[in-house]
Amino acid sequence: MPQRVQLVEVGPRDGLQNEAAVLSTEDKLAFIERLVVAGCKRIEVTSFVHPRWVPQMADAGSLYAQLPRHEGVRYSALVPNVRGMHAALDAGVQEVAVFCAASETFNRKNVNRGVEASFAEIARVAGLARQERVPVRGYLSTCFGCPYEGAVRAERVAELSSRLVALGCYEVSISDTVGVATPGDVERVLDAVLQRLGVTTLALHFHDTRGTALANIVRALDLGVGVFDGAAGGVGGCPFAPGAAGNVASEEVLYVLGGMGIETGISLKKMLTAARFLETLLDKTLPSRLLHSPDTPARSID
Amino acid sequence: MPQRVQLVEVGPRDGLQNEAAVLSTEDKLAFIERLVVAGCKRIEVTSFVHPRWVPQMADAGSLYAQLPRHEGVRYSALVPNVRGMHAALDAGVQEVAVFCAASETFNRKNVNRGVEASFAEIARVAGLARQERVPVRGYLSTCFGCPYEGAVRAERVAELSSRLVALGCYEVSISDTVGVATPGDVERVLDAVLQRLGVTTLALHFHDTRGTALANIVRALDLGVGVFDGAAGGVGGCPFAPGAAGNVASEEVLYVLGGMGIETGISLKKMLTAARFLETLLDKTLPSRLLHSPDTPARSID
Repeated sequence: MPQRVQLVEVGPRDGLQNEAAVLSTEDKLAFIERLVVAGCKRIEVTSFVHPRWVPQMADAGSLYAQLPRHEGVRYSALVPNVRGMHAALDAGVQEVAVFCAASETFNRKNVNRGVEASFAEIARVAGLARQERVPVRGYLSTCFGCPYEGAVRAERVAELSSRLVALGCYEVSISDTVGVATPGDVERVLDAVLQRLGVTTLALHFHDTRGTALANIVRALDLGVGVFDGAAGGVGGCPFAPGAAGNVASEEVLYVLGGMGIETGISLKKMLTAARFLETLLDKTLPSRLLHSPDTPARSID
Repeated sequence: MPQRVQLVEVGPRDGLQNEAAVLSTEDKLAFIERLVVAGCKRIEVTSFVHPRWVPQMADAGSLYAQLPRHEGVRYSALVPNVRGMHAALDAGVQEVAVFCAASETFNRKNVNRGVEASFAEIARVAGLARQERVPVRGYLSTCFGCPYEGAVRAERVAELSSRLVALGCYEVSISDTVGVATPGDVERVLDAVLQRLGVTTLALHFHDTRGTALANIVRALDLGVGVFDGAAGGVGGCPFAPGAAGNVASEEVLYVLGGMGIETGISLKKMLTAARFLETLLDKTLPSRLLHSPDTPARSID
């Protein structure tokens, strides 16, 4: 089990993209600043996607330009295509993330093209990234089940993950887009993926739709995975995935890791502050349980 | 890891005792009937406690007398003292559960006497149970932290657990009363307990206050534990424990076990039916995430 884990905070992107309330750039920046203060070193801050699809991300360029620059903090942005990549490069992006689904039908519903067409586009984006020396992260979605097709084969996940690495992704985030995975599925999928890729090229991305995200993370830790995506407060989901609830709450991930003696460099207390701030901005109760649990001497948080 | 797991359904007792709405005996029986239909074989149905302390349980004797009798289904009842034990025996109880906290202060706040006084009372209750050939289960609460004292030593948990067994408990349910445990704590506490007791004498009882219950169960499974307490819908908590949210939701436990290929003999679909019925009775949304997740072909439930 890794002694140190990286948390990739995806609240500002994967979290906010599914929120009905569109936050101002200023509010987003204030949220991101709190994440940095908490100690986050990897934050996915926005998506260079057409504002018709995700109005929340219409300010991607402007937001990126105003990000607080801090030593050792890397901000990434999702890019769905070459057009988005050019916009991201114009904004001086430090890292980009590309994405494709393991399920053909989900990919068509999500981006209106098939998996092979997505891979062709990813190849073009990755080519631009290589030219500009921008690191590329890959998301492979619906790795544990598709809301249209049902089961997804682990071998398919392994094959597409290794193709993302072959195209230049330094890391693939194996994603449970609709939050159906159990620890048994994590074993099954990772068994297949680890036959093709080293564990250090993998991240796992869980949504907590059915309460299983933390259990899945612990099983992935057992198998050596050292990078996990989370979102402050458990905000978010995917607007194109029926039933996808929020991302696993970053503070719950930190709480579990802390209880297991695993270092992250992130302050749980300050992550809770960031999550509470986001609740105020969105004027809603976020799904995180830890965020709404009382302080107790039974487990001090500092 | 066990291939077969027993779920002890504690919704009618640990769940309902913390609900403000007092259900009629008829409604409780209808809920219990649905649990039996789902396949539950071990159900903690009530508590023979003074109604001044838990008004919800004032109908314990009457409820017990009317329980639907089914081959292979065992109904247990919590008994806090000798007086409760006599009432339970008068009702023809099949099994009783006794309890004590690992934390001195919690025990005093909970039952107004110290741990040693509780053990003396448990010895008397267990003596009566032995005479009448009634199996006794023991709960040891606050095993992972106390809301008054803070940390609880694993060695203390181990010592008190083995004393419960020595007094005649066939099983000890190691309980995270305030829902603070992480998988690291499960390892730490079980390491100590398993030096004194065989794994088949252990159950684990988690509350999901901080979202960690399923992760804790998976870690306990890894260590060979094969009995877990749960409550339909995630209902419940403890009225004397500040901040204790609901028990882990039985349906979420079944979902995770199913995804790991572990048998329980309980139908997940019918457990969801029981949980939905309980929501109707209580006229509130219960904490379970799975209960409120949409049906999806990504994971069929039947």
